[in-house]
Amino acid sequence: MQAKKKSFVIGVAGASGSGKTTLCKEIVREIGEDKIAVLPHDAYYRDQSSKSFEERVKVNYDHPDSLETELLIQHIHHLRAGTAIDLPVYDYKLHTRAPETVRIEPKPIILVEGILIFAEPSLRKLFDMKLFVDTEQELCFIRRLQRDVVERGRTVDSIIEQYLTTVRVSYLEFVEPSKRFADVIIPEGGMNTVAAEMVIARLKALARDV
Amino acid sequence: MQAKKKSFVIGVAGASGSGKTTLCKEIVREIGEDKIAVLPHDAYYRDQSSKSFEERVKVNYDHPDSLETELLIQHIHHLRAGTAIDLPVYDYKLHTRAPETVRIEPKPIILVEGILIFAEPSLRKLFDMKLFVDTEQELCFIRRLQRDVVERGRTVDSIIEQYLTTVRVSYLEFVEPSKRFADVIIPEGGMNTVAAEMVIARLKALARDV
Repeated sequence: MQAKKKSFVIGVAGASGSGKTTLCKEIVREIGEDKIAVLPHDAYYRDQSSKSFEERVKVNYDHPDSLETELLIQHIHHLRAGTAIDLPVYDYKLHTRAPETVRIEPKPIILVEGILIFAEPSLRKLFDMKLFVDTEQELCFIRRLQRDVVERGRTVDSIIEQYLTTVRVSYLEFVEPSKRFADVIIPEGGMNTVAAEMVIARLKALARDV
Repeated sequence: MQAKKKSFVIGVAGASGSGKTTLCKEIVREIGEDKIAVLPHDAYYRDQSSKSFEERVKVNYDHPDSLETELLIQHIHHLRAGTAIDLPVYDYKLHTRAPETVRIEPKPIILVEGILIFAEPSLRKLFDMKLFVDTEQELCFIRRLQRDVVERGRTVDSIIEQYLTTVRVSYLEFVEPSKRFADVIIPEGGMNTVAAEMVIARLKALARDV
């Protein structure tokens, strides 16, 4: 048995459209892919191959039950123990898990990101550092609107409908209350270089030590 | 003329009793007094030698007008330009400025702390990094209560009276709204080692470069 140092697990949460993905990309770019493994919570959307397509479309993908969080927890434990994992891949067109997976090797730093990662106590307790990207809801909505119209060709009406029926409901019920568990709250994610530099300085110091 | 690197100015704000002083002490201990100069905003309470003692007692010391912020701003500019300053000393018994001052030499990092430092735009814009220690108000009150009874021998009634008439009013009017200007919000100050380690890692990296 090798006396290995345990990986450091960082969680980045925040509303959809808050800018957490921008922050995570910046972190990975600065720390280097050889030092950091990224597990997006939404890669763990449940396999729905046993359901009809009509049933799949009706699922609320902003609710914690839509995610196989128990598998994510298992994967964090595996990576921490020095074992590679197979990250699931989700097929957003078919609304179910794709047959392929992505091999993720153990790294000194494990970055987990998602809107709901601090809402579940059994997942939350695994983080050594919890960051919450806290951007005002109307800015998040505007970003989703711009992104979904341009990148996904969706109509404004359908985006508003989804926001009001699931995104906002989930934000108020699960995401916003989970902010209180954060170690650090980062306002205006995606444009906050001062905060990003602080997080990166800490992770660089850790990557040297781990 | 020497081409000197400019000092890095960090501001630590937060309610009275939020734990910002604990965080600042931890920062100074880790960075080292040779690298960091500390300017507490409350050292800049206005000189009141021309007022009677009775008049001095009536002043609202939680209001921005009680502080000589323009002198603090001048001092930050001096330190940044490489010139030592004379930090005022406040005499809390006589409620006016003491005759002595404390010489502060220029350092690579300048730390300014106080409840109102992000409330004033001309001061706020001088900070390279703005931290807001965000502790729930009842916890701040409990800390003030414990501290003021034990350390200052005050009665519970007088502490409640002061809290309701000035501290809370100033918090709602000036301190809480200034939180939105922070780069990073630190919940539960004074016990949040994860956040402190992050701030310190960034400042250590800066102290090497400045």
